[in-house]
Amino acid sequence: MKKTIALLPGDGIGKEVVDVTVDILKAIAEHFHHQFQFNYGLIGGDAIDQKGTPLPEETIAICKDSDAIILGAVGGPKWDQNPMELRPERGLLALRKELDLFANLRPIKTFESLLDSSPLKKEYVDGVDFVIVRELTGGLYFGKPSERIVHEGEDAVVDTLLYKRYEIERILVSAFEIASKRRKHVTSVDKANVLESSRVWREVAEEVAARYPDVTLEHMLVDNAAMQLIRSPKQFDVIVTENMFGDILSDEASMITGSLGLLSSASLSSSGLHLFEPVHGSAPDIAGKNIANPIATILSAAMMLRQSFGLEEEAKAIEKAVDNVLNAGNRTADLAEDGKAVSTKQIGEEIKNAL
Amino acid sequence: MKKTIALLPGDGIGKEVVDVTVDILKAIAEHFHHQFQFNYGLIGGDAIDQKGTPLPEETIAICKDSDAIILGAVGGPKWDQNPMELRPERGLLALRKELDLFANLRPIKTFESLLDSSPLKKEYVDGVDFVIVRELTGGLYFGKPSERIVHEGEDAVVDTLLYKRYEIERILVSAFEIASKRRKHVTSVDKANVLESSRVWREVAEEVAARYPDVTLEHMLVDNAAMQLIRSPKQFDVIVTENMFGDILSDEASMITGSLGLLSSASLSSSGLHLFEPVHGSAPDIAGKNIANPIATILSAAMMLRQSFGLEEEAKAIEKAVDNVLNAGNRTADLAEDGKAVSTKQIGEEIKNAL
Ligand SMILES: CC(C)[C@H](C(=O)O)[C@@H](O)C(=O)O
Ligand SMILES: CC(C)[C@H](C(=O)O)[C@@H](O)C(=O)O
Repeated sequence: MKKTIALLPGDGIGKEVVDVTVDILKAIAEHFHHQFQFNYGLIGGDAIDQKGTPLPEETIAICKDSDAIILGAVGGPKWDQNPMELRPERGLLALRKELDLFANLRPIKTFESLLDSSPLKKEYVDGVDFVIVRELTGGLYFGKPSERIVHEGEDAVVDTLLYKRYEIERILVSAFEIASKRRKHVTSVDKANVLESSRVWREVAEEVAARYPDVTLEHMLVDNAAMQLIRSPKQFDVIVTENMFGDILSDEASMITGSLGLLSSASLSSSGLHLFEPVHGSAPDIAGKNIANPIATILSAAMMLRQSFGLEEEAKAIEKAVDNVLNAGNRTADLAEDGKAVSTKQIGEEIKNAL
Repeated sequence: MKKTIALLPGDGIGKEVVDVTVDILKAIAEHFHHQFQFNYGLIGGDAIDQKGTPLPEETIAICKDSDAIILGAVGGPKWDQNPMELRPERGLLALRKELDLFANLRPIKTFESLLDSSPLKKEYVDGVDFVIVRELTGGLYFGKPSERIVHEGEDAVVDTLLYKRYEIERILVSAFEIASKRRKHVTSVDKANVLESSRVWREVAEEVAARYPDVTLEHMLVDNAAMQLIRSPKQFDVIVTENMFGDILSDEASMITGSLGLLSSASLSSSGLHLFEPVHGSAPDIAGKNIANPIATILSAAMMLRQSFGLEEEAKAIEKAVDNVLNAGNRTADLAEDGKAVSTKQIGEEIKNAL
């Protein structure tokens, strides 16, 4: 198989973790006789420094010419005081909108060997296995007006939570499709006792559910969902929600496993050009020190192989190698006890050897 | 001291927990030679059934004629299919707006005797002691438009996140006032990398902070806050945030202690007429069984004595009695091991005796 992969390392530890991931992908290509071509693009702070914009046209072109995209991370204190249009995260938001990456998938699954890393007690997290499906291109993130106004004669400010009905429908369809291949339970999270958009969301959820008779639909209010994620995370199979609720809940959920450095994500578009990235951020404090955990990005690459290229065996090979390396006790600094950590590059080598 | 207290028991377990609380308040009045007059009002589902509206005019009048308000809980499956204006929670939302109850305070503090009830490991929760200050009368909850529209020729729906600058300022002032009497640290939670309202929020926070030179201000993004509440809850002293973020984060935070049945809250207005209520809901499944935990409401009454009437000694007496009763091993069903629970009324009696 011949595939072109856009690589957007971005800022902070982004470069290091993408480097290691590319090594793994090269090993996979060799072993399974594929050809992967890698095209690098600038995004985030790096792009601001070199091109004066967080998402250069070139980068969009590189992505559009590729079969899939791997992103490292964006952001850092260096650009925190910049005006909004010159902030690293605008590059990511613009890319999502530009490529219509409307469905963000985050699997939350505990690793047997890392059960003790969670802030939650073992009995709460052992066996947790769910996916959050977050809408990624609508809602408060992109609605207009988003501006300072005078309201009833007074200084005020407004943001807009806007959804077209089809945007709600397609994300719910994604969730039901995923659930139908899993334990067949969808928890749709909204705030229907307050928001009109949530009431439409609930209606559309019911309509979509009718097309999937073997999948159960449950509605849950967002405040309750924030509680249930801690109180009994095992109850969930697929959680689907709008953009802002999804941003909050998926970061909350990422704490359940206690191993943020292992969590991968996919952002899917209807065109088939998808983006894969670790859940963690650019961690500027540890950047360039060869201590970051590259596993989240490596597992994102496995998701890419499965989801974008249909390479199930290759994806499994990576996942199994990661499991083995963790079971053998290898830990980067984020998960290791004092003084026992392996470096970013070392753990990459271990995983490559385990393939 | 002579005070009039409006009692709004509402639905489900609301009546039972308010009943027990009234007993405690009567004992306090007798012991400390105060006169408390209690005026009952209807709200929620109960009010819908009896008066055809979740917030009858009479109830508003009763509240306005009182020095403080104690609310039980509203809601239940009986009214879940009602049109929006005839839903129990609309009564609560309307009361907040009508009385301008703009500052919702939720103390989150672990009870020594209940450390093991938390889903989180002991070392994460031991010593947690913070307050969430949630804005309660603005943002997405009340902004207009909130309706179905046609947008770019397509079916769509819109909600509006609207804040006047003074609404942002007064809630931040509340938070800084509280922090200045505590550990002097304010964490202001927003989504300034996406929302214009959050950028104004941040500006106003900086302005207010300049007036409190001994209080430290920290800005935290809402997704990060949702993580940090689990990862290291002890870092917080006072968290302040807008209405919807506060709804989600305060429910998440209520799980930290593992004892929702003990958490109290206050909703403060600028007029001085405040409302006090337990954090938990109406729990229709256990209503009328004399098994609900009344402690959250009893502790809300203690907050009322302190905050509305300045009765510090009386408030402390209640808090100490609750501590003693818990330390002696008394537990209602929500916290007890199988077969060892005391009833709603029994634990009320124990607390009265411990006064
Ligand atoms: C960087 C930020 C704009 C972004 C978001 O809020 O979507 C991030 O938190 C995420 O979840 O990918
Ligand atoms: C009942 C509901 C409208 C309410 C809210 O969202 O404010 C509740 O969740 C709360 O937190 O008091």
